[in-house]
Amino acid sequence: MNELAIVEKIRRLALRGPQITLGIGDDCAIYRPKSGEDLLFKIDPMIEDVHFRRDQPPAILGQRALGRNLSDIAAMGGTPHFCLVSLAIPDGFGGKWLDQFYRGLMALARKTGTALAGGHLARAEKIYCDVVVSGSVPRGKALLRSGARPGDAIYVSGRLGKAWHKRIQPRLELGRSLRGRATSCMDLSDGLSLDLHRLCVASGVAANVDRVPVVRGATLERALHGGEDYELLFTLPLRLAAPPGTTRIGGIVKGSAGAVLYQGQPLPRRGYDHFAGA
Amino acid sequence: MNELAIVEKIRRLALRGPQITLGIGDDCAIYRPKSGEDLLFKIDPMIEDVHFRRDQPPAILGQRALGRNLSDIAAMGGTPHFCLVSLAIPDGFGGKWLDQFYRGLMALARKTGTALAGGHLARAEKIYCDVVVSGSVPRGKALLRSGARPGDAIYVSGRLGKAWHKRIQPRLELGRSLRGRATSCMDLSDGLSLDLHRLCVASGVAANVDRVPVVRGATLERALHGGEDYELLFTLPLRLAAPPGTTRIGGIVKGSAGAVLYQGQPLPRRGYDHFAGA
Repeated sequence: MNELAIVEKIRRLALRGPQITLGIGDDCAIYRPKSGEDLLFKIDPMIEDVHFRRDQPPAILGQRALGRNLSDIAAMGGTPHFCLVSLAIPDGFGGKWLDQFYRGLMALARKTGTALAGGHLARAEKIYCDVVVSGSVPRGKALLRSGARPGDAIYVSGRLGKAWHKRIQPRLELGRSLRGRATSCMDLSDGLSLDLHRLCVASGVAANVDRVPVVRGATLERALHGGEDYELLFTLPLRLAAPPGTTRIGGIVKGSAGAVLYQGQPLPRRGYDHFAGA
Repeated sequence: MNELAIVEKIRRLALRGPQITLGIGDDCAIYRPKSGEDLLFKIDPMIEDVHFRRDQPPAILGQRALGRNLSDIAAMGGTPHFCLVSLAIPDGFGGKWLDQFYRGLMALARKTGTALAGGHLARAEKIYCDVVVSGSVPRGKALLRSGARPGDAIYVSGRLGKAWHKRIQPRLELGRSLRGRATSCMDLSDGLSLDLHRLCVASGVAANVDRVPVVRGATLERALHGGEDYELLFTLPLRLAAPPGTTRIGGIVKGSAGAVLYQGQPLPRRGYDHFAGA
């Protein structure tokens, strides 16, 4: 199978979006913004032997490659519009593997209204995939990491410590519902201890954590430090009620920026730092 | 050096753009479109041992990683606005190598007004880099591959057959000057024979090529079939004059869509097909 045939197959699978005025097949894709939109962009890689093993089901990998980026769109309170997919695969992966990978990716794309606007296909020794997702929020309404204030309550969606191989359910609806309400928001991808530290650094505040909701079968250790939860971490002023499906885990306090206590003790940051020691 | 320190270093090097209302450091970057803009998007990878060798100067690699995408923005008649860079590097590349890579990339970014809005840094066994570039054209004014008509003259910018290791000079000014004038345009990345075929397929036309401008030191074979020229290939109605720095190489004719003759003989397509035989 040659490149043209593969691209044609992907094009047939691709969801088109109303604002994608030119999709796969030219030098660039074209997106026509609506007035009053702020556009959100996120790129994130999935690398063989770093994020996954070759023998994992390709449909799950495709779902995850898109899902982890959609989780960032959710964290900003955004609505996804389109994605671009750059995929490099070894010899022999251009047939059924590729087909299943794109079917997994496109199933989540359809569910979330994310058009596949373009991408690139290359051959390499190992599987490597970068997905870019773009979404939008009403102008000036994006949820940032930097707005948490002393007195705010801290929440997470879902339960933490999820096994990495599960499908990602990006919390898009929750994210949108937090616009104009949450003072800060981010998604949990590198572990609560590291991500909450980052949110506190960005906001110039400290945090006390009292408890965390642990998913069935996981340890507290994993819920505190394990990555790849893809839940939302956010802060709300005390006067606002907890959104459905979320748990209040503690509160924002004045203090050294980034300092986090768990049940009164400093919480070590053992989350995933891609370059610790590099 | 840990991830935070590296990201902070990149952030200091990064050019900010007036429409990038949020840059490196949150879950997503934010771009605020101007009214009447159509936005262009292109993603393209650079993979060690596929597109380059590890011992090549990192500043040149950074320049190329951005330049090849800017060439696609030029081919649509666009003005670049920002890029996102996903880079995976092996142990030991987080210091000087990374610094030089970003300096090469940012030098071209500054020259072309391309902000570095965000990205990702990972560790992998081999170097892998995906760059996404976004640009804009006035609404509906993008140059496409699909508008060439019988009777149009075919042009290329510069001279063909360039050695792959030279710096890329994306033809942004030329591309913008062709808006509203060229009937079709694309950039030459996989070789004239293959790329002109693609343009003709997209336009449903055939082409006759009389001559090609060959760069000094290159063979005609390389000018016809070698990839990585990053020049523009475009068509103009006969009544329009040749833009400076371009050469008329032939004409568009009626015929089997995609058929290309060189001096009366069918031109074989020996350009770079990433998946021929896969």
